[in-house]
Amino acid sequence: MSSWGNGVKISIFGESHGGGIGVVIDGLPSGEHIDRDALLLQMARRAPGKDKAATPRSEADQPEILSGLLNDTTTGAPLCAVIRNTNTRSQDYGNVLSCPRPSHADYTGFVRYKGFNDIRGGGHFSGRLTAPLVFAGAVARQILLRKGIRIAAHICSVGNITDKRFDPANIPDALMERLSSAVFGLIDVGQEKPMRELIEDCRLHCDSIGGTIECAVTGVPAGVGSPMFDGIENVFSSVLFGIPAVKGVEFGDGFDGTLLRGSQHNDAFYYDGDTVRTKTNRHGGILGGISSGMPIVFRTAIKATPSIAQEQNTVDLQTKTNTVLSVNGRHDPCVVVRAVPVVESAAAVAMLNLLKDVNML
Amino acid sequence: MSSWGNGVKISIFGESHGGGIGVVIDGLPSGEHIDRDALLLQMARRAPGKDKAATPRSEADQPEILSGLLNDTTTGAPLCAVIRNTNTRSQDYGNVLSCPRPSHADYTGFVRYKGFNDIRGGGHFSGRLTAPLVFAGAVARQILLRKGIRIAAHICSVGNITDKRFDPANIPDALMERLSSAVFGLIDVGQEKPMRELIEDCRLHCDSIGGTIECAVTGVPAGVGSPMFDGIENVFSSVLFGIPAVKGVEFGDGFDGTLLRGSQHNDAFYYDGDTVRTKTNRHGGILGGISSGMPIVFRTAIKATPSIAQEQNTVDLQTKTNTVLSVNGRHDPCVVVRAVPVVESAAAVAMLNLLKDVNML
Amino acid sequence: MSSWGNGVKISIFGESHGGGIGVVIDGLPSGEHIDRDALLLQMARRAPGKDKAATPRSEADQPEILSGLLNDTTTGAPLCAVIRNTNTRSQDYGNVLSCPRPSHADYTGFVRYKGFNDIRGGGHFSGRLTAPLVFAGAVARQILLRKGIRIAAHICSVGNITDKRFDPANIPDALMERLSSAVFGLIDVGQEKPMRELIEDCRLHCDSIGGTIECAVTGVPAGVGSPMFDGIENVFSSVLFGIPAVKGVEFGDGFDGTLLRGSQHNDAFYYDGDTVRTKTNRHGGILGGISSGMPIVFRTAIKATPSIAQEQNTVDLQTKTNTVLSVNGRHDPCVVVRAVPVVESAAAVAMLNLLKDVNML
Amino acid sequence: MSSWGNGVKISIFGESHGGGIGVVIDGLPSGEHIDRDALLLQMARRAPGKDKAATPRSEADQPEILSGLLNDTTTGAPLCAVIRNTNTRSQDYGNVLSCPRPSHADYTGFVRYKGFNDIRGGGHFSGRLTAPLVFAGAVARQILLRKGIRIAAHICSVGNITDKRFDPANIPDALMERLSSAVFGLIDVGQEKPMRELIEDCRLHCDSIGGTIECAVTGVPAGVGSPMFDGIENVFSSVLFGIPAVKGVEFGDGFDGTLLRGSQHNDAFYYDGDTVRTKTNRHGGILGGISSGMPIVFRTAIKATPSIAQEQNTVDLQTKTNTVLSVNGRHDPCVVVRAVPVVESAAAVAMLNLLKDVNML
Repeated sequence: MSSWGNGVKISIFGESHGGGIGVVIDGLPSGEHIDRDALLLQMARRAPGKDKAATPRSEADQPEILSGLLNDTTTGAPLCAVIRNTNTRSQDYGNVLSCPRPSHADYTGFVRYKGFNDIRGGGHFSGRLTAPLVFAGAVARQILLRKGIRIAAHICSVGNITDKRFDPANIPDALMERLSSAVFGLIDVGQEKPMRELIEDCRLHCDSIGGTIECAVTGVPAGVGSPMFDGIENVFSSVLFGIPAVKGVEFGDGFDGTLLRGSQHNDAFYYDGDTVRTKTNRHGGILGGISSGMPIVFRTAIKATPSIAQEQNTVDLQTKTNTVLSVNGRHDPCVVVRAVPVVESAAAVAMLNLLKDVNML
Repeated sequence: MSSWGNGVKISIFGESHGGGIGVVIDGLPSGEHIDRDALLLQMARRAPGKDKAATPRSEADQPEILSGLLNDTTTGAPLCAVIRNTNTRSQDYGNVLSCPRPSHADYTGFVRYKGFNDIRGGGHFSGRLTAPLVFAGAVARQILLRKGIRIAAHICSVGNITDKRFDPANIPDALMERLSSAVFGLIDVGQEKPMRELIEDCRLHCDSIGGTIECAVTGVPAGVGSPMFDGIENVFSSVLFGIPAVKGVEFGDGFDGTLLRGSQHNDAFYYDGDTVRTKTNRHGGILGGISSGMPIVFRTAIKATPSIAQEQNTVDLQTKTNTVLSVNGRHDPCVVVRAVPVVESAAAVAMLNLLKDVNML
Repeated sequence: MSSWGNGVKISIFGESHGGGIGVVIDGLPSGEHIDRDALLLQMARRAPGKDKAATPRSEADQPEILSGLLNDTTTGAPLCAVIRNTNTRSQDYGNVLSCPRPSHADYTGFVRYKGFNDIRGGGHFSGRLTAPLVFAGAVARQILLRKGIRIAAHICSVGNITDKRFDPANIPDALMERLSSAVFGLIDVGQEKPMRELIEDCRLHCDSIGGTIECAVTGVPAGVGSPMFDGIENVFSSVLFGIPAVKGVEFGDGFDGTLLRGSQHNDAFYYDGDTVRTKTNRHGGILGGISSGMPIVFRTAIKATPSIAQEQNTVDLQTKTNTVLSVNGRHDPCVVVRAVPVVESAAAVAMLNLLKDVNML
Repeated sequence: MSSWGNGVKISIFGESHGGGIGVVIDGLPSGEHIDRDALLLQMARRAPGKDKAATPRSEADQPEILSGLLNDTTTGAPLCAVIRNTNTRSQDYGNVLSCPRPSHADYTGFVRYKGFNDIRGGGHFSGRLTAPLVFAGAVARQILLRKGIRIAAHICSVGNITDKRFDPANIPDALMERLSSAVFGLIDVGQEKPMRELIEDCRLHCDSIGGTIECAVTGVPAGVGSPMFDGIENVFSSVLFGIPAVKGVEFGDGFDGTLLRGSQHNDAFYYDGDTVRTKTNRHGGILGGISSGMPIVFRTAIKATPSIAQEQNTVDLQTKTNTVLSVNGRHDPCVVVRAVPVVESAAAVAMLNLLKDVNML
């Protein structure tokens, strides 16, 4: 379903070409001031075609807050934000899905919903539905920041072009702040050019490309999270896989770490004044599902956009024959860039729940 | 927490050196015959020191079923199984944690539970707590098999020694059956020798090693799973990260797939008789969170056991000083082998919930 | 919180004087036709000042459906409906609560939300928030009716003026149909006059009056519901107590039934053709939390509206002194009448979840 | 299902004649000392045939705590307690249900579980399953008492013999303490004799009798609970209806209160020093689902035990004919007495969750 969370619940609704999309956030603490400009900045980072724009405001993606906020302060009641769809066309598509796009949810959605799902623009499976998640994340991160918790991600790779990774044992606030408002977020900004060139090459070839996003959460005190099924990894991943195109999540050293021996992988504890820290942070700030006080660091794998203009083999579900499909319309050749604030938002919403669980919210 | 699931809930309890461990499974369909020998076979695959043993039975790890089963058939009431701890020692440890083992949950558990957690043998964080999960999985897979759904995993890698991977578009039942009862499960059995040599080398050096496990679920019809937060990836990962030492989960081509262009990564649909299939299966059987009818394939990263006999730097929480620790006792130099049935079990329990969600249970 | 349900979740949002109120319904089956006129009819039954109006439409309470519906048919994606608030005034109340109204949520909401809750018109505690519940119920009952399940309630009492009760062993479809669209629903329509007189007397005396509502759900097959905490009584009551002013819920013979001996209270089974029925239905269609196939019958206690124009003693939370309060504005002297469709709606939403739980949705 | 709760979850398992019954409590705070004698005292209040016994200990109903407790202090890990069934007989009943007892769950359980449920002694529907709930409640109330929260109930009525009711605006600690350990709990102890006479009369006539239980929770600060579906009434009732035979729940003045006008029913606020209180407490300590700081008071309706030795009409499900049934065995002619600690326990478990929800646990 499109509802998530226990202590703080989000319920995301909408379809790409319906009346509107949005989110209800239930369980927010009262008395939290919400800066609307900061909200819009986050929305703008995700919005299509915005990454070189001068203005962070896009009337089309402007969320309208219907409830839960009074004098820009949370009331404790559910906060609902609605974003109107402006590309809704009046003609009836008849909702006939003939040829599902390869590696898209067209076919599986068709089977799951017996052909009744709204297929226009991907319907509820559209990447557009990440906008309400970013809205929720933008609310969450303002609350988290007041508790000293920062969340920022960067484009870790586009195809085989890689950014530097976080030094997980030492992530400066200044870097976190820079990244958390960046539109093309990189630790090594020198990689923007080759990445953009690769993306442009994909566009020219009517193709797309995947990549990875690395995200850090700093300022989380030790002791947040619960064993087994409510650990930080479980909670984070259960939201992260809600982002279309995410096919993998790893924490700390993740898959690479499996090559190491225990003596190499273990992170020694030491006292830094009165604070227990680890010299290295291969554990990604999480041990036994619970925060260690070190930065939480994880990476997500984002597959190449399946919507490409090249001809592809597929089936015709009406005639039950094999056929060939060309996807029309302009599609993003690399969603990794715009997915950065979405990943941060998923982490922010997850973090809010984890804090609530240990009475810190 | 140690409870998981909606339609079918599991609640795992126990501590390594307490009275016993076990699981309550609530929401099982009634009328399902449970083969106790098949249950014990799965328990034996996970049990310590069993991988060359002749007998699948270990009295010590024998689950006692207290409820939910009558004449070896599920009654529909909660099924509770208890496994006694036999290594419980009577002396009082005083529960004083002085020196947390690096990269273990000792420290984070201490902070989370304010020092009241049972630290003996890792307490509730012990790998022993995967036994009840294997029990639940063993029940689940019997129900799933009756619906044509098979679950099997293999040791995909130990350190840098790798097994062959599944051909995700074509996984024969015979392979699934062989792997699902194997103790050292490999597709290419020739890799057992070098893997065992590497593990033995780690043991001799008082060290440990990580690895990866690849798991397949076959026979799942198209249309299982829900968008966003109840997709197959979300549900699977929320259980998988409940297994100690799991630091990453990827579906289909996962992280490697991010290197590919859409034209390479997309899986073309075709009609195989009346059935829609894909020629390749880079999507790992999941599109938009929903099964496509192709095998579900995923990999998990298992970090090296943190408990190693080498001296390691750590802190003394009582004296608040830095110190050096040697972990005593015999520890498994590579938990990957025994984690194979645990991963399968997590998948089985997850699958049960996903089926329930679409009225197939 | 304002979210409810597992298989089918509703998330209600809004505040009396905010931008709007509404509901997200997640988990609806796809392919269900929704009759908008039938929706509006139910909304009109609850709307204020409508009970003698000629038109069932009130532009002010017109729900806008933003998602989940295509060609008036459910898509399977979350269905969101928004109802605009038209009485939002621009001036800032400053949100200063001085004098909480006795027996209203003013004081408890103030403490719970540390003074940040929107107090205008009761905010999120307002009876106006039952409109989204009626919307959700109106959707649910259309789906239920297609399965032969009817839901209807009547004003069982206003103060000491009582209607006849259902004969719980025999409730004709015609009565269910009449009541489920009635505005002043009574089994014995002759009681409308004395009830209206009592209500009018209360209004004239700046007072209010309580009452009870009896509701029946017919057509539910035997075997719906689960033991202990997911029984029909648990599920129904957990929604019913979400209706403001509900202070009691009883099923079957309820409190009166406690006066009876087992030999009097037990309902004998008999075969009516191939169907097992009971001759009497003191059990209210529920045994062990599970439906027996007999009509489900329950009653709810609705307390007198606390907002009365008479002077009342209360406190001033700013000055911390005792004081006297007169509530201004026109208030409904008896909410029982308008609560009838709300109670039905709660039952409808509950029923949808119960059916989902046993794979009947 | 038999699992309940969010912040603190209980999962109850077992069948009357299976291997054992018990409960897993997940989410308890760590560091809470648990007095085992106090636990056993509560268990003894519920145990059959104990109400005149000298010893509070019954070996047969002795719970074994398998986990979650170390040195009699909660570890924060799930606490599991198992109570062995000693009346398990080896012969196979064949589990053939022929003639369902009127007004019992025999028939509905049979339909729900397709005949596979364990019918011996009522199986999972047996009143015996309230023992694990009392265990959980006994743990919960010790934690609550440390926060100043007391829970006590009394037999409010047996048939038409009534006890005095609580003065809801003024419930002394001494009364709470006396009732919370009483075996035949009454405010007016003079009513014990007529109540026992009525019960004995029912027994002699092979009959049974219903009654009501009134319960108070004192010491709850204002501001606990949430609007709509997580209000105190919702949460309490969702557990209370998990007790077999409970057919109604009312808070404050409940059904009787519906006869009153607002001017009579409203409870005026006043300052008692710095504390806001109400002079009367018809609202039962709850306004808008949230505690007001006044005692929480509610009543539950308990129907007469359906198992009576008189001949009753029922059906034979095997032969599909009408027949006559005599229930054998000794059955409690009035479960109200033993249900008192069960009701308190439900309230205690509910209260724990409500406190967790507002960060007070």
